[in-house]
Amino acid sequence: MEGALLYKIRPIIDQALREDIGRGDITTEALVPSDAWGTAILKAKDEGIFCGEAICYGVFDVLCPQVQVKVLVRDGEQIAKGDVCAQLQGPAWAILMGERVLLNFIQHLSGISTKTARLKALIADYPCTLVETRKTLPGLRLLQKYAVRVGGGGNHRLGLDDAVMIKDNHSVAVGSITEAVRLARSRVPFTAKIEVETKEPEQVREALDAGADIIMLDNMSPALMEEMVKFIDGRALVEASGSVNEENIVKVAQCGVDIISVGALTHSVKALDISLDLKIANGH
Amino acid sequence: MEGALLYKIRPIIDQALREDIGRGDITTEALVPSDAWGTAILKAKDEGIFCGEAICYGVFDVLCPQVQVKVLVRDGEQIAKGDVCAQLQGPAWAILMGERVLLNFIQHLSGISTKTARLKALIADYPCTLVETRKTLPGLRLLQKYAVRVGGGGNHRLGLDDAVMIKDNHSVAVGSITEAVRLARSRVPFTAKIEVETKEPEQVREALDAGADIIMLDNMSPALMEEMVKFIDGRALVEASGSVNEENIVKVAQCGVDIISVGALTHSVKALDISLDLKIANGH
Amino acid sequence: MEGALLYKIRPIIDQALREDIGRGDITTEALVPSDAWGTAILKAKDEGIFCGEAICYGVFDVLCPQVQVKVLVRDGEQIAKGDVCAQLQGPAWAILMGERVLLNFIQHLSGISTKTARLKALIADYPCTLVETRKTLPGLRLLQKYAVRVGGGGNHRLGLDDAVMIKDNHSVAVGSITEAVRLARSRVPFTAKIEVETKEPEQVREALDAGADIIMLDNMSPALMEEMVKFIDGRALVEASGSVNEENIVKVAQCGVDIISVGALTHSVKALDISLDLKIANGH
Amino acid sequence: MEGALLYKIRPIIDQALREDIGRGDITTEALVPSDAWGTAILKAKDEGIFCGEAICYGVFDVLCPQVQVKVLVRDGEQIAKGDVCAQLQGPAWAILMGERVLLNFIQHLSGISTKTARLKALIADYPCTLVETRKTLPGLRLLQKYAVRVGGGGNHRLGLDDAVMIKDNHSVAVGSITEAVRLARSRVPFTAKIEVETKEPEQVREALDAGADIIMLDNMSPALMEEMVKFIDGRALVEASGSVNEENIVKVAQCGVDIISVGALTHSVKALDISLDLKIANGH
Amino acid sequence: MEGALLYKIRPIIDQALREDIGRGDITTEALVPSDAWGTAILKAKDEGIFCGEAICYGVFDVLCPQVQVKVLVRDGEQIAKGDVCAQLQGPAWAILMGERVLLNFIQHLSGISTKTARLKALIADYPCTLVETRKTLPGLRLLQKYAVRVGGGGNHRLGLDDAVMIKDNHSVAVGSITEAVRLARSRVPFTAKIEVETKEPEQVREALDAGADIIMLDNMSPALMEEMVKFIDGRALVEASGSVNEENIVKVAQCGVDIISVGALTHSVKALDISLDLKIANGH
Amino acid sequence: MEGALLYKIRPIIDQALREDIGRGDITTEALVPSDAWGTAILKAKDEGIFCGEAICYGVFDVLCPQVQVKVLVRDGEQIAKGDVCAQLQGPAWAILMGERVLLNFIQHLSGISTKTARLKALIADYPCTLVETRKTLPGLRLLQKYAVRVGGGGNHRLGLDDAVMIKDNHSVAVGSITEAVRLARSRVPFTAKIEVETKEPEQVREALDAGADIIMLDNMSPALMEEMVKFIDGRALVEASGSVNEENIVKVAQCGVDIISVGALTHSVKALDISLDLKIANGH
Repeated sequence: MEGALLYKIRPIIDQALREDIGRGDITTEALVPSDAWGTAILKAKDEGIFCGEAICYGVFDVLCPQVQVKVLVRDGEQIAKGDVCAQLQGPAWAILMGERVLLNFIQHLSGISTKTARLKALIADYPCTLVETRKTLPGLRLLQKYAVRVGGGGNHRLGLDDAVMIKDNHSVAVGSITEAVRLARSRVPFTAKIEVETKEPEQVREALDAGADIIMLDNMSPALMEEMVKFIDGRALVEASGSVNEENIVKVAQCGVDIISVGALTHSVKALDISLDLKIANGH
Repeated sequence: MEGALLYKIRPIIDQALREDIGRGDITTEALVPSDAWGTAILKAKDEGIFCGEAICYGVFDVLCPQVQVKVLVRDGEQIAKGDVCAQLQGPAWAILMGERVLLNFIQHLSGISTKTARLKALIADYPCTLVETRKTLPGLRLLQKYAVRVGGGGNHRLGLDDAVMIKDNHSVAVGSITEAVRLARSRVPFTAKIEVETKEPEQVREALDAGADIIMLDNMSPALMEEMVKFIDGRALVEASGSVNEENIVKVAQCGVDIISVGALTHSVKALDISLDLKIANGH
Repeated sequence: MEGALLYKIRPIIDQALREDIGRGDITTEALVPSDAWGTAILKAKDEGIFCGEAICYGVFDVLCPQVQVKVLVRDGEQIAKGDVCAQLQGPAWAILMGERVLLNFIQHLSGISTKTARLKALIADYPCTLVETRKTLPGLRLLQKYAVRVGGGGNHRLGLDDAVMIKDNHSVAVGSITEAVRLARSRVPFTAKIEVETKEPEQVREALDAGADIIMLDNMSPALMEEMVKFIDGRALVEASGSVNEENIVKVAQCGVDIISVGALTHSVKALDISLDLKIANGH
Repeated sequence: MEGALLYKIRPIIDQALREDIGRGDITTEALVPSDAWGTAILKAKDEGIFCGEAICYGVFDVLCPQVQVKVLVRDGEQIAKGDVCAQLQGPAWAILMGERVLLNFIQHLSGISTKTARLKALIADYPCTLVETRKTLPGLRLLQKYAVRVGGGGNHRLGLDDAVMIKDNHSVAVGSITEAVRLARSRVPFTAKIEVETKEPEQVREALDAGADIIMLDNMSPALMEEMVKFIDGRALVEASGSVNEENIVKVAQCGVDIISVGALTHSVKALDISLDLKIANGH
Repeated sequence: MEGALLYKIRPIIDQALREDIGRGDITTEALVPSDAWGTAILKAKDEGIFCGEAICYGVFDVLCPQVQVKVLVRDGEQIAKGDVCAQLQGPAWAILMGERVLLNFIQHLSGISTKTARLKALIADYPCTLVETRKTLPGLRLLQKYAVRVGGGGNHRLGLDDAVMIKDNHSVAVGSITEAVRLARSRVPFTAKIEVETKEPEQVREALDAGADIIMLDNMSPALMEEMVKFIDGRALVEASGSVNEENIVKVAQCGVDIISVGALTHSVKALDISLDLKIANGH
Repeated sequence: MEGALLYKIRPIIDQALREDIGRGDITTEALVPSDAWGTAILKAKDEGIFCGEAICYGVFDVLCPQVQVKVLVRDGEQIAKGDVCAQLQGPAWAILMGERVLLNFIQHLSGISTKTARLKALIADYPCTLVETRKTLPGLRLLQKYAVRVGGGGNHRLGLDDAVMIKDNHSVAVGSITEAVRLARSRVPFTAKIEVETKEPEQVREALDAGADIIMLDNMSPALMEEMVKFIDGRALVEASGSVNEENIVKVAQCGVDIISVGALTHSVKALDISLDLKIANGH
């Protein structure tokens, strides 16, 4: 677990619990005695890469700290069908009320980690980094980006404020890529890198001359990308972007780019099947 | 558009914008003049069911009300590749800063509507309702459930507080399904329906005798489900649940159940490809 | 105490404390040493039904967890003048600063429980449920509805989202009660019951034919209500509503209705007199 | 209307609306077309003092600014059964969704104003001010105190931070009333008045000598109060407190005290009956 | 430490931490192992008056309660260059992530305390109170006013709601100072003092006759102030205000005023230099 | 005005207004009629660089949009004593209630801009950028950093999440600067620059070899800094940091560094004197 993650996601977890619970879990509040005790295990029902340590601790830290949580699998570990990922023990009402939120988070995040790892494995022989984009689900960016790292990927910029990305519209607004890079350099924090999105060789050349730190090759053919990588020749980082998927990612990696960004890592996620088995004992 | 949706989602939109913008869109703030004007269209790049009217209006209502929005497609309409779904016009900075959040919402929601409509079409000849579950993404439940309705589905309960769902653990906690239904009936709002999750015929019988309003058949075979539907014979609503997908949904519908719930409608969503094309004019 | 209540009301308690404390309790901060220790008892000054366990624990859990709280009376128990309901012990400043908020909550909630119990006792011989309405005080609904349950009542719907209530205006908007029930059934969660408000026999008949789950008899005479109950004959739940009070509630119950709703349970509450006696010792 | 009230209560109104609406008004959203238009009147069903101008404007300003509001009665005016207090016109869904919250606020506040005016009338011949206490309902203090003013009363301190109130426990903590006043004077803002709660003549004398700005006579007999008022002789303001009600308030006023505080003005409120009559027209 | 301060400032500290941390401390999260242990000291690099006990405890209480904090200096104590003010020990990541926020608060508050004490020392021989004004930095008022008290000052009103301050515009709005005082007295809480801002002798006379509790002499010459103090002769508190600084404060005090208010105490603050020295040990 | 600033600071302004207003401006609410109209000017009482356009618009947009605001001076313009910076016109109560918050913001921000401009002017002949640090006042970072830009400065990183800053403790935790840079590069977003804090030539050499993007020379003598700049020779950006002030900044600039960071720009700010002159007219 990253030490600080728990502090960062507390508000997100609290919001998720309140979204589900609303005015109360009327079933559990009607039927489960306050002092009923539960023991539960979190069990994988499919294979993949686990992502959810902080969620396990965080959900019950927020909802009911009396629940004792022991996570048996580290974020990033491979899990197989049937593996027990975590053990819970505490007031039964709390486990019942937190269960769905816990699983909704972990299945989604583990789905991202699993997909990232699968794509990453395909390009393991190439020295390039696989990253997501800003195509994340509203409210979940922090966690989705964390899950990509857990799956072996790297991260693109975290938001609109931590790096410059000059697109066509920005260049047009100030006249040229050259001017856009120059102006950005003079106006944004000196600690921020500047990336330029390019669609044609001419733009690549201009971006490089202007001193871009990173050049994005947007939807170029493998052949053109390879040519551009050679042309840039290490003078800037090179990101390949646009419709990369399991079928074509190896071809993209072969072009020699430094970074491959894949929006689908976060915008189209298949949940990893994980379930919670609970046993309730009255009195403890 | 549902009239009240805009009020309900304002806080979600505001949160999503602030998540992306952080301390600012350093690129746009550095390069785009305050008075630059933009006109943009929202264009489908794939076919499906559109869901996003309130998002289009809401994003700019929150971020910059000067942006004029005209949505050309109603929620629930079929869109084809190339269709223009909406037109925007206003300060260029606002369109640039709101673009990604707008698309992240709409692509996700339209993905849900599209998948719902596809599954719904498969069972169009059967008088049963297709619904999602509580397996929704944290923070997005309200919108995800809305998107299912837009796609032609119905809704399962909205949270833990608007209907009773008696699972094994609840029955065990009080002794029996019979006792669980009786107790719930006496303790929850009289306006709440009571559903019982069953795995075997014996449980179905007990739930029915106890007066359950809805009986969920959890992971039963089609043959067993058909038998149970006949046995219940209209005395309770019947929900089929568990691993329903495009391959087996017709077989489930043929069993005569009233409701089919599919968790994947909201937990494993493929975004529908929609993009924004912006043109900036300096001065207006 | 309902196990989950504490989590649900934390934000309400925090808000109440901050409303009273503002920039600080200038008296206590000026005069009471940080290490002064206090012991206090919560004492009934009138007789009634106690409601406040979670408040006692919650106020100090939020304000100063060092204060040890022992509640001696369970929610729903009868208390007599002079009874000690709870014991507190901890930093004197915390008891002084939390006192007023604690009492404001408990006196109000116990007032509701007491009134509910009194009305409930009047109709103890009839198999009907006494419930409140949505006429609750802004911000306090969750707790007010809890207090009604504590006093022996049941609950009406919790908000606008957990059950359908078709009033005249809704029927007019779609043409008829029949059409309103049909449309609602097809558009709201299948887990939601549908109630129809009726003022005349003809409307009762139509609502019943349309398949309403609950029929509200609004401001009908006892004679008419009795006739309607016979006519409905168990095919729907029957709620009596409108100007029910201590004088006429028995007559209403005699009509055989299933539910009697009384707005005054929550909109016009007489606080139950409970006080806090504190002793301060310097050093502990 | 006090000009600034609207700004101050916006968050309270928003919270109240969201508390009632939850995930949506499922009835109205299912049945009322987005473009249905409504006209409504707010009608008194009992006589009393109206308090609710800012609520009428505020509820729809927050929920749906398209609703046009015209309040016909000023806060503080006497209303009779049948009087039309306000007219509304706008989207029917918004009037339906805001109705209950609007009425819950106005009935409660007008109940307070009405009760305040009734008590005030009893002591109209005496030069003393009638005020509430800090026994207000959590979350509603600002509005409750406003309603007391509207009913002709004055206000006691607004919270723990705007005036000093030295009670027994505070004096004991520092040794004496004399020391308590001295210390408070040296430690709190010089703009804050200091009030001392007294139960016996000796305490009154000490408080006066110590320089208290206000002396509260707590639960003293009328005879003793009269004696104390004479003794104090204008050297401090005198507040009478403790179990004042309609039966004994005149006797208290006759003692010559400057202020009479009555907790029941805000802790035990009988709602004033006011209703909303809505007509829906499809299309406008 | 004032016992209640910690509760009051929790939200401010949480906000400050989230402002700095944003989506994470990418450096520390990348480089410092979760189980690395740190010990740190807070060291004065300049001399002054310390103000920061509650900050030391609060920052880590919010961020990571595992960090053990021992503050060695009490708020208000003189510190010299090199003095160790506090010791910290706990997870290294937490100390690194909280360090800057901790210092930003403490350096600012100690800067205020130090300046207050320096000005206060200049007028030590005069029986007047030194206070700040409402010229505080947005969001920091509570803490800034606390720091003034820590430095030996008193406080002016805490906000717009705890005392009346009648300025020219208010008098003009109602016709005269006399009428303004009379109206205010009848409309604001009886617990609130009334202060009148005056610029000329005539206004002082009118304010005094009207019964003002406090008279502010705004930007008057020392000679005029002295004359006014004599004229007022203890019948109201007298506040001197306007451009008071280290050069002229003694002259102002010599005039015999009761209170001297200095806006610069909070609007123009020089931070006191305090640093944090951290040692990291891997494993503990 | 930066177009997006208003959206970003709305919550900060709202919080500042509520901090000052509390339960209300009791003076203005008691004395100023709701329909009294005010016209006001914002006037410089000292010379400096104005910073406050968005504040002028934002305060009244939040508090009372009826107030019409016309700002006559652009952020960054030089103002002289007596200059009218803005004109306001609208309900008098709103101008009175917003005045103090408006001035508190603008005086502070203009103080920062003015100081920045003064320091910047001293090094106008050198091609280096003057920036602030993370030593900002809690809650005000966004605005303080904006004010530095307005004054002609650039910005350092905005928080802990938008650039890597490797300090001694980080290097120690992983063994060396070399390893720290390598690890950070592999774990943080590829869009983030890496800065290394150095105190000695050996560290500079190691940081450069490790591929740091920026090297901070911490508290080095001018002679050593000059040597380091020559050694680095454009292979990394060079930041000078530590105790830079008006006396020594030119000497630092002469060393040839790219960036000079000055914590005092934001941690020790002298407010620029600006006042508001209001005239109230009854009726408009």
